[in-house]
Amino acid sequence: MSAVIPLVAIVAGQSGTGKTTLMERLIAALQQRGYAVGAIKSDAHGFEMDQPGKDTWRFSRAGARATAIIGPQQYALIQRSEEKKDVREIAALMQGVDIILAEGFKSAAVPHIEVVRRELGTTLVSPLQHLVAVATDIRDLAAPVPIFALDDIEGIADFIERVFLKEHASR
Amino acid sequence: MSAVIPLVAIVAGQSGTGKTTLMERLIAALQQRGYAVGAIKSDAHGFEMDQPGKDTWRFSRAGARATAIIGPQQYALIQRSEEKKDVREIAALMQGVDIILAEGFKSAAVPHIEVVRRELGTTLVSPLQHLVAVATDIRDLAAPVPIFALDDIEGIADFIERVFLKEHASR
Repeated sequence: MSAVIPLVAIVAGQSGTGKTTLMERLIAALQQRGYAVGAIKSDAHGFEMDQPGKDTWRFSRAGARATAIIGPQQYALIQRSEEKKDVREIAALMQGVDIILAEGFKSAAVPHIEVVRRELGTTLVSPLQHLVAVATDIRDLAAPVPIFALDDIEGIADFIERVFLKEHASR
Repeated sequence: MSAVIPLVAIVAGQSGTGKTTLMERLIAALQQRGYAVGAIKSDAHGFEMDQPGKDTWRFSRAGARATAIIGPQQYALIQRSEEKKDVREIAALMQGVDIILAEGFKSAAVPHIEVVRRELGTTLVSPLQHLVAVATDIRDLAAPVPIFALDDIEGIADFIERVFLKEHASR
């Protein structure tokens, strides 16, 4: 087995802070730096990944507990589970990635970058032992970790690269 | 690790034989008998599992090599790969299933149930060492394995149950 891949959660106390956009931009920035990135989304309600009428959808509807499709350059797996899976368990399924960014999962025991948007509340929700950085539009926010502007994608990517991707990085 | 889950490929020499419908009906029949079924589809062209505009789609488009979404009772993983993955490798990712049916994969070294439809040609394409049964609309087809009518879902399900799901089944 290979070493455990670094996993960083992008979290926020509320929805609407722009986590998804930050994730999207960080994925692109890290990918441009030559890293292969995995991305995991937390879904509260029950997503519909498959598309009605497709064969995999027909198999699911017929009662399959797991369905997969294997193509020339990608595969997909949809797996039913009794309870919500731990983000680390799903991260361990990913192949060929250097780092994994997860959106949500604020109760997961993994490093958190917390997104704080002034109009949505200024209280940090991450336990301090997991908080590694904050991305915010508040100029004078106090936190015992590095603080970045919400749109400072290169700065946050630098931080992620330095802390999680360079071997023996000094924090 | 648990024991290897039985994997049976539903194959045919041509498209249009009704493999997908047979898969769908077998999944339902086996599920009704109390078995948890996994289903795998072979895709030749490059499927589009994700839906435009969804967050996972945005992550993929931003360059993520793997994307996943975790919901309360299911998760999904889309993984890019350099080449088409072996069906057994993807089968090994499935959890909580008793048996896995795969559609296609006629060159895979797994047991084959071959579907033969008169109007599309009567030549079997499965290597004999992998062929375990035939489903066909031809009354007088000769094959050295059990032969079932294409619509004899319960008969084929009986066969699968007896050969692959009962411990120490005698073939």
